[in-house]
Parts: sequence; C-alpha cells; structure tokens
Amino acid sequence: MYGTGNKAMDDKDFTRAVAAVKDDRTSGAGALARQCLALLAQSGASAPSDSVSELWRILDIRAGELAAARPSMAPVGNLVARWRDSVGESDARGGSDLGRLRNVATEAAKRISAESETATARVAARACDYMREFLGSDRRDRPSNQKPAVLTLSWSGVVAEALTSLHGLEVEVVVAESRPRNEGANLARYLAEHGMTVTLITDAQLSLFAEQVDMALCGADTLFSDGAILNKAGTRLMALAMADANRPLVAACESFKTISARGQGREDGAPPLEEMPENELGYGKSSPFDFRNIYFEVTPARLIATWCTENGIVHDPAGLTRLSNPSSLV
Amino acid sequence: MYGTGNKAMDDKDFTRAVAAVKDDRTSGAGALARQCLALLAQSGASAPSDSVSELWRILDIRAGELAAARPSMAPVGNLVARWRDSVGESDARGGSDLGRLRNVATEAAKRISAESETATARVAARACDYMREFLGSDRRDRPSNQKPAVLTLSWSGVVAEALTSLHGLEVEVVVAESRPRNEGANLARYLAEHGMTVTLITDAQLSLFAEQVDMALCGADTLFSDGAILNKAGTRLMALAMADANRPLVAACESFKTISARGQGREDGAPPLEEMPENELGYGKSSPFDFRNIYFEVTPARLIATWCTENGIVHDPAGLTRLSNPSSLV
Repeated sequence: MYGTGNKAMDDKDFTRAVAAVKDDRTSGAGALARQCLALLAQSGASAPSDSVSELWRILDIRAGELAAARPSMAPVGNLVARWRDSVGESDARGGSDLGRLRNVATEAAKRISAESETATARVAARACDYMREFLGSDRRDRPSNQKPAVLTLSWSGVVAEALTSLHGLEVEVVVAESRPRNEGANLARYLAEHGMTVTLITDAQLSLFAEQVDMALCGADTLFSDGAILNKAGTRLMALAMADANRPLVAACESFKTISARGQGREDGAPPLEEMPENELGYGKSSPFDFRNIYFEVTPARLIATWCTENGIVHDPAGLTRLSNPSSLV
Repeated sequence: MYGTGNKAMDDKDFTRAVAAVKDDRTSGAGALARQCLALLAQSGASAPSDSVSELWRILDIRAGELAAARPSMAPVGNLVARWRDSVGESDARGGSDLGRLRNVATEAAKRISAESETATARVAARACDYMREFLGSDRRDRPSNQKPAVLTLSWSGVVAEALTSLHGLEVEVVVAESRPRNEGANLARYLAEHGMTVTLITDAQLSLFAEQVDMALCGADTLFSDGAILNKAGTRLMALAMADANRPLVAACESFKTISARGQGREDGAPPLEEMPENELGYGKSSPFDFRNIYFEVTPARLIATWCTENGIVHDPAGLTRLSNPSSLV
C-alpha cells in the first residue's frame, strides 16, 4: 500500500504515492489498479479542501495522474475512469455537502475495487475449471506415468490463484523467470509454498519446455478487443513456442482490462510499451554497449488458443465482444 | 588453454584438463574442439610412455575421453575422430620409433586445428559477404535514416568475426544476453570494443527486437545433415520470432560441425542436450522449487532461411550435402 495511513493525503503525499505506482515492478495490472483506487479513496476521505468544487477539482486531477501512470496497463486507466465517471455523475458533486462528496468518492473507490476483486477471483475459478477439464481428459498424448504440466511466466495474480485452486489434480508447473526482475521466481515460490510441484527455468528455455507441457497459461496486463494481449516481455516467445509445438496457450484476463484494439497502435504507431531503467539488467554503467529494457509486448490473437474472462471462455476472439457484454450471454 | 605447459602430460594432468573442457561455458564448439586437439598434441609429445604400442593405447583412450566430453558439440567428436583416424592410419603406429609416433600425433593435431581455423575464418568471411549484400541492398523496407540491424545471441566466434568484418557498412547489432551465463554480454563487449554500435537485451525481448532488425545471424555448435542446428538455448525462440516477423535467420557454421540427422534423436529418443549445474541460475539452494538449466536446443531447418559454411551459401537444406562435399561444387 502506497497511502499515508490515517494522515490527510496532501499533494506531496499523493505525488510520492504516484511515483511508487510508476515504480512498482512486482504487482500485476489488476493489483496496481486497485492500489490506485485505494489512493483515490484516501484522497476522497482526506485530501485537504474546504469546498465541494475544490475537492472535486483535486480528485479529478489526481484521477488523471493515476490514469496516466502506467500506460501499458489498461486496468489502471479503466478502473480509474470508472471511478471518475461514478463520482463525476453523482449528485454529491452539487451543493455544499463536503462530507457527502468525501463519502461518495471513498465508497465508489471501495465498490469498484471490490468488483474488480470479484472479477479476478471469477477469472481464476473459470481458468481453474478449464484446466481441470483439459488436463484431466484422456485425449492428452502424455505417458500415463507423467503428471500433466502447465507452462507460465512472470507473476500474475490470476494465474497464481487458478493454479493453486487445482486441488486434487496433480500438476507440474514450469515457470520462466522473466528477466530482469525475475517475477517468475516469485510465482514459483508462491506455488511451491502452496504445495505444488514447480520447476523454474530461464526465459531462454521456453521453447525447450513448450514441447514438454500440455498447455501454457498466462495473465494479461491489457486485453485488446481483437483478442491480442499486452503482457510481460517473453509472453509472445512463449506463445510462438506453444503454437509451434501445437499446444494451446490460454490467456486468463478480467474484462475490465479490455481496451479498443486501436490502442495497439495499428493506427497511431507503437503500442504503449513501458521501458524500465537499464541498470535493472545488472551490467553496470561502464559497459561499452547500450541496453534496452522493454517490459511489455503484444501477443497477437492468432497465437492464443483460448480466452478466459470472468464471464466465460471462448476459443475465437470474435466471441470476446459477447463476453464483455454479459447481458448478451444466453 | 587447459594444458600443462612444458611439463609431461601424465594421466592426472590429462584428467584435470578434460574436466576443464567439460566445465567450459564460454568457448564455442570450434574453439573447444581445437582445445581438445591441443591436448592431444601435448599428449602425443609428452604422455609418459616407453613404447609405440603403449603410447598409442594411451592416446587412443585419451581421444575417446575427449570425444565424449561435450556431447552437444559435434565438432569436438568430429575433429578428435579426424585426428584419431589420421594417426591410427599412419605407419608410425608400427615399429618401435617412439619419437616418430610422437611427432606424427603432434603434427596431425596441429594440422587439423589449423584446417579448422581456416574453415572458421572462411565461414566468417562468407557470412560477412552475404550480410553486406543483403543489408546493403535497397530491397529492405527500412526507413532511409535507420541503420541496418542484425539480431544475434550468446557468443559465437564465427558471428563475432563476421560482424566485425563488416567494415564500411554501418550496422547496429542487437545481442540477447543468453542467461544464465550471459555469453551474449561478452559478444556485445567484443563488438563494441571493435567500434560497432551494440544493444544488449534480455532473452525475453527477442520477439520485440525481431521486428526491428533486418536479419538474425547465429553460429551453431552442431549442424545436422538435414539442416537443423544445435545451439545455445534461446536460438529456437529467436528463430520462431524471426520467422513470425518474416525476416531471415542465417546460420553460419563450419562443415566440420556436421553430424547425421539421426543424432537429433528422431530415432533414439532425445538429442544430446547438455544440462549444467542449477546453481548457475543464482537462486540459492534453499528455494522451494526445482530448476532446469539445459544449455542447448535444436532449431529445425524449417526456421532457418540460409546456411553459410566455408564452402558456400544455400537457402535450401538439401543443398548442404553438396556443400559438405566441395568436390561436387561446380
């Protein structure tokens, strides 16, 4: 948590908290979006202000800063926008009841955060059910003395929850470490501490292990409306290796992470791929060569076999529109 | 050099030298094969023995040990076998002229080593010529203000020599580091010290950069007769990413690295992929999960656009037979 505890959250505190959000390398996009909502709740409750209009001005500015803090992570912008719409449209923005606006702003943030947590839990449960069915079925060409195996990489809250929910089904999980910060090792540790059989590999071994597993599972920091996903660098390599080995990659992702495919940059240049400091690579400043440390990459829909959101599972990206509009579901 | 200097090379010295060959993570396959020839030269000159037959027995055993030291590196076995055949068929093996056998054994090792160095230099020169033609041509869809760019990974003597020979053609080289030992950083440093523009990336970024370069170049530790190559783990990911980006991967490799495609394990199980100690991954022994550290992988011919050996360049693996039999060349 990047907040200020019970202290009023003034501009300086807020700026510091935004910097921490920008700097966070370990949280997934959903967790980070909820972190932003917590900052908005705290701002609503305690940003120094004497009037309704002044408080809204401050909250609106802060929402804008948070929405722009992590350009590669759509849920941050999406959930902050949802909060802004909710508070902006509330009649608490009129009149002079400062306490009421504080209450509305805080409660909206808590409600949206809770809804997103519910969505995350539902995606994980659906992904778990799907894996249980897929891995448990007899159609796999695996020798009978070999456990079903799943390949993944980096850290994803949804993936962590889906895998640890596979009670009763003995599964081996192979995790690529995800240089430079090795969030994959965090996932490997988490899974092992939950009693799972886990093998950690270097990212360079992804193709070697694609041929030894039954399926791959990944989360996504952003889901594009055409089915492409934006996720940690290395995801596209894993997807290519799985497609080449003729094994499926399942992308598990809450629908609040969805943005228009236009954001992929097909019309406006490059996708918003955050780049982190070069010194994370660990080679020291005196090296005679340059470094690049791009954190995210886009994996196109054609390399993904199955999409899992909280509203259901589809094997064709065209079905995602239906999933993002649950009222149209039969 | 893993030898004993001017001291006679007894069995203990030799065993120590073989262990160093097995443990070597930084030398390419060609350099390592020449290292083995140097040990055979030294053994021929100074292995303690009083008779021709005893010396040959010792040399034959030592050749066998060296040939088996690096199962993923065909040139080690190939050049040692070439030496063994050469000495074994020599008439110095008959009679009682110990000095003559010592001389033949030493000279054969030096000659085969020199021939292999010539082959390496020729491959590098051919690869350089090919890159110069390919990158210099107007057909590339690169903006005119952008330098031609080549992607590679790990360390390869041939790649290092081919790239640094590109005098006059301004090229940017992107090198993937190749965890766990980051031999790619050694290549990046070598190229930068030779005045080249170099960018080092994590292996996880290979797909991101495949789309930004004109071609990829790699060496090979082993070339299979069907055009597949065995090279550092990560090579197949680079090949998949290049194929997906519709850009060519060029494999540059001396013909003495060739073995039958049968060795790929299509008939007898798995290819000989050396695995190195887990602690190289740097996570410590107390981790609650397992590690795998497979160093090599096979990249199939269908992912390679062009093969370059000392005898010529082909774009179809069927042409490799012609190249490995130079007398059939027109």
